[in-house]
Parts: sequence; structure tokens; C-alpha cells
Amino acid sequence: MGNEEQVLLLSWRASVFGLRVQIALEEKGVAYTYSEEDIFEKSKLLLESNPVYNKVPVLIHGDKVVRESLIILEYIDQVWDLHGPTLLPADPHQRAQTRFWADFISKKIYDSGRRIRHSKGIEKEEAKEEFMRHLKLLEGELGEKLYFNGDSFGFLDIALITFSCWIHTYETFGGFSVEKECPKLMTWVRRCMERESVAKTLPSPLEVYQIACLVKKKLGFE
Amino acid sequence: MGNEEQVLLLSWRASVFGLRVQIALEEKGVAYTYSEEDIFEKSKLLLESNPVYNKVPVLIHGDKVVRESLIILEYIDQVWDLHGPTLLPADPHQRAQTRFWADFISKKIYDSGRRIRHSKGIEKEEAKEEFMRHLKLLEGELGEKLYFNGDSFGFLDIALITFSCWIHTYETFGGFSVEKECPKLMTWVRRCMERESVAKTLPSPLEVYQIACLVKKKLGFE
Repeated sequence: MGNEEQVLLLSWRASVFGLRVQIALEEKGVAYTYSEEDIFEKSKLLLESNPVYNKVPVLIHGDKVVRESLIILEYIDQVWDLHGPTLLPADPHQRAQTRFWADFISKKIYDSGRRIRHSKGIEKEEAKEEFMRHLKLLEGELGEKLYFNGDSFGFLDIALITFSCWIHTYETFGGFSVEKECPKLMTWVRRCMERESVAKTLPSPLEVYQIACLVKKKLGFE
Repeated sequence: MGNEEQVLLLSWRASVFGLRVQIALEEKGVAYTYSEEDIFEKSKLLLESNPVYNKVPVLIHGDKVVRESLIILEYIDQVWDLHGPTLLPADPHQRAQTRFWADFISKKIYDSGRRIRHSKGIEKEEAKEEFMRHLKLLEGELGEKLYFNGDSFGFLDIALITFSCWIHTYETFGGFSVEKECPKLMTWVRRCMERESVAKTLPSPLEVYQIACLVKKKLGFE
């Protein structure tokens, strides 16, 4: 398996996608080197290792390059299969459901969150409505379970929990309260935050908010 | 595994995503019932079984519902693991590469193909340029190999080959030749077409073109 080769992660402090990879590596107890990218001036290594998208996160394991956060999570789960908990459920249908919602989060929660930060007027209102509607779908999927897949923290929890450090930012830009509308989901957030892999990885809501304001200014959105 | 339960596929004749599932089921020798959807008047069963996206394909296996073509392919590969060839490579890095390119095809080839059909002027020119650039990336990934993963037909071949019956349509709408710019990829298309699972599943280029013209008219694009 070659799982003793060096592991290097190219990421960005506030990347919901990069943070997923960090939590997965922590869960598996994999030692890795973290390399912070300037998203406005990307490194040669990033551009060369992800020429199709030029985006973080990129995991470099020995001489192998793995891109796209959910694909990296599957890779980590397979390569370090005997290190720490299995992230994906074993049952084929539960796996399919996990992959479906993880993909939904990557597309929909990310997109509506971005639009809350960078739009105005009716477009912002639509983004807020969409964001809350999507969170409610996820809250329904969680149901009364402790974690998305039942009693143990796993793949889908990792896919979503990284958005939690952005909630304060979405709320501040959007003028709404996630706690008020999705109290069960916020209870799940607090449960995940008790986990060392999550608590030590996620930046504070205030740090994310400061980064988000800087990014907005640099991108020229006012 | 419960892999003797009934299998029902909700799809649409010209869906590049639905056709992937049909080829995978054929490869595994799984008996299934096909239910054709009218994409302009979707069935109650489709809307109820995929309430998040309201889209084909949906695989209903016994009482389990699986959505999103690549997720369905992974499901089929796992449930019918002893039926026919394994679709995904076993090696974790090859798996990651396969998933990366399959996702790329779903996003990028689909999107630029759609824009070739439904746009005009500079937007259409941009879509054509993007479409060919993406196909060339895939041709580079294929290299001198027989199939994307080497000597045997698999996951990534299935993910891309369903677009081949649309090439005539893209070429006709766009006024360009894929054969001229990507001859090696077209050799791979002909190789895949020799496979029974592909040949018996894909509609003819002319049938797809007729469907595409009808869809364009119904959508009000001229």
C-alpha cells in the first residue's frame, strides 16, 4: 500500500474542502505536512499538481497526487484502512446515500453560501432561502441519529462539519440565524466539535469571518 | 447482499447519465426493467424517488433508491461484485484518478456540450473551444492505452462512452469535427463500440440528433 510514504497537503486555512482532508487525516492518525496556499497567488506546486482546476486541496502522497476533497477522503479511507475508524459505511446503499449527500453539500451548500457572501438584494435573499432549505434537508437526513451514519462519526459528518466554522460568516452577511431554524443540526455541530480531530482543525468563526471580509474586499465585492 | 431483488431503472433514451447505468448493468449481466421518462412531464415515481434533483437516472433495487449516475455505478460495482468484470480499479490511486476524470466528464464535458447546443455567437464559440480542450485532456489521459484503465474496459470508459452518441449532434450544432482534432479518442470510441454492452445500449447518432432538435424546440431555443 505504500502508506508510509510522506504526505503533503496543499490547502488554504478557511477552505471547507481542505479542512475535510485535515479532519480525515487526523481521524486516521496520519502524520502529514501542511502547506498553506495564498489563493490569490497560487504556488507553482499547486498549479502543476492540479492543472485542471488550479484549486486546493491537493494531497501529495509519495509521488502520487490526489485532487478533489471527497475523492481524497475515499483515498485516505482506502489507503489507511487499518488506521483509525472507517469513514465510509460498508453497506452499498448506505455508501451510496453518503456519497449522494456529500456531493450535495459540495455543490449546493457551498454554492448558496458563496452567493450569500458575494451578492446583494434579491439574489442574496434567494441564496439565503436556498441555503436554509438545503440545511433543513440535511437536518432531515440526520434525523434523531447522533451522526449522519448512526452512532459513529464518519464520511458525511466530515463533509459537512467544515461548513460550521463559516456559519457565523453566513449569518453576519445574510442577517439570519441557523440555530433558530435548524436547532438539531446545531446540536450535531456541537457534538462534532467535541471530537479532537474537528476541534483542533477548524479555525474559529471569528477568524473565518475576518478571512471572508478580506477575500470579499480583494475580489472587489462591496 | 440482496442482489436478487428486482432492479428498475428510470431513465431517458438520450441521457448520457442514464446510459452509463445501462452499460454497467449489461457489463454485470444484471436483469433489469427499464422505464422511459418524459423529461418534460416527469413521472410521480421519479419525482418521489429523487425529490432533491428530480432527475434521471434513478436505480430502484428492491426498496432501495440510488441516485446520480457515478454513485449508481459504484453501487452496481459493489453489489454485483462477483458478476462480470470489476468496473473500478482496485489500486487506491488509480481509483482516485478514475473518480477525478469521471467527475470531470460529468461536469465539464456535459456542460460545454449543452452550451454548444443551446447558445449562439461568442458563447457558442467559447463552448466549442472548451469542449475540444476538455476532450484533448481526456485523450491525453487515455494516451496509448486500449482503455482508460489499461487493457480492460471499466468505470471511466463507461463514464465517457455515452457521450459518443452525442458527438454527431455537437458537431452538427457546432460546425466542427472531433475526429479531426482527437483521432485517438475516436479510435477508442470505435473500440468501445465493439463491446456488446455498449453497442446494444447506445442510440444511434441520428436518433440522438433528432431528439436533441426536438428538445431544443421544446425549450424554445432557436
